[in-house]
Amino acid sequence: MRYALFGGGKRIRPQLAMLGAEAAGGNATAAIPWAMAIEMVHTYSLIHDDLPAMDNDDMRRGRPTCHRAFGEANAILAGDALLTEAFAVIAQDPALTALLAQAAGGQGMVGGQVSDVKGKIKNLSELERMQAAKTGALIQAAVMGGAIASHAPSMRIEVLQKFGRALGLLFQLTDDLLDADQDRARDSNSFLHHMSAEKVLERRDTVADEARSFLAHLGSAAAPLLELTGRIQKRNQ
Amino acid sequence: MRYALFGGGKRIRPQLAMLGAEAAGGNATAAIPWAMAIEMVHTYSLIHDDLPAMDNDDMRRGRPTCHRAFGEANAILAGDALLTEAFAVIAQDPALTALLAQAAGGQGMVGGQVSDVKGKIKNLSELERMQAAKTGALIQAAVMGGAIASHAPSMRIEVLQKFGRALGLLFQLTDDLLDADQDRARDSNSFLHHMSAEKVLERRDTVADEARSFLAHLGSAAAPLLELTGRIQKRNQ
Repeated sequence: MRYALFGGGKRIRPQLAMLGAEAAGGNATAAIPWAMAIEMVHTYSLIHDDLPAMDNDDMRRGRPTCHRAFGEANAILAGDALLTEAFAVIAQDPALTALLAQAAGGQGMVGGQVSDVKGKIKNLSELERMQAAKTGALIQAAVMGGAIASHAPSMRIEVLQKFGRALGLLFQLTDDLLDADQDRARDSNSFLHHMSAEKVLERRDTVADEARSFLAHLGSAAAPLLELTGRIQKRNQ
Repeated sequence: MRYALFGGGKRIRPQLAMLGAEAAGGNATAAIPWAMAIEMVHTYSLIHDDLPAMDNDDMRRGRPTCHRAFGEANAILAGDALLTEAFAVIAQDPALTALLAQAAGGQGMVGGQVSDVKGKIKNLSELERMQAAKTGALIQAAVMGGAIASHAPSMRIEVLQKFGRALGLLFQLTDDLLDADQDRARDSNSFLHHMSAEKVLERRDTVADEARSFLAHLGSAAAPLLELTGRIQKRNQ
């Protein structure tokens, strides 16, 4: 659990949680348990995705993957325990527990992963649906849950819900662009399979503008989140 | 998820949840979401335990195991989603969320499973510690959570906590006795490796009496739970 959790992740989701709290006018520190929970769920999903039965990856962030370092049984169990521990740290907030279960479950992250494993994505709208569940749901929940954790007014939570949806798509578009040189276009689960790289770039910038337009409703409190959006748009890792 | 969840389990844990509610003087129906959550967690643990990297079982309850029927990736994901869904159905009750996370996590069920996978249990007290975590924690939580879900007085919850600890041990002792003919004595993770079958039987009856002694504090409301305890003591499947 520690090996995977403290393995040099970029901590994008915890940042989103805390900046989501700030953007909604709340206190970022109120979102710390939520930020921890989201990162634990993200980490568990990487451990399980890397397993031989899934992506069968040997390396992650420059080190052996969890199952390579500790064996498959321990990797499965480390993932299970991280998912469980995520709920432990937010147990006292029913709204956050419900949000995490919905974003991470069969209608969210795991559901998207099932579609991804199945493969054979036929068209762009099917791909967007899969990605919205697999990656988008947790990104969206991260930022929205930050606002909930800091007891923000529901109107601001709704704004961040819309922002989060756009950001999730932006994240996946830029993720595919990063891997563009690795023959990703052959994989039906990539945007590059369904659109030219130029079109993906165009879409990326349109979606980033859309995300920013939601933040405009939140005033200067959203400035750090605006800046992070720009970094995700232009990211090179 | 449905294949595993509706695969003919005995529903011992949901019964414990609902009878725990009754024994504490509450309404069994108030414990239904908790009963569902506990059974989902139990089912996910069986799916993951059956995986090739763990026990590598092909059959469960007379049918192919989940990974045999749907492939390993889907079995891992079905387990993940069942664990997540368990938290969804009890999200509105912080005490239950905390109890489930504690009983199912690294200090409870998964922690016990890690010790079990590691093997090489040296003595009886180490075995009891492993079993208390692996199987006992969820059994104990089942009955105790039922009382919590029905808003029972804390004194009764504490009685059921003690009862649940004894019942968890009883469950494991009888489980080992059921498999006694399968050379279980060679496995250091079995009570039969550390004690003769006669001693295990003696221990079983002592522990069952201890469990019953706690229920005596709860009066006639605990009669159905008393009866279930007797059935577990004498079970032959």
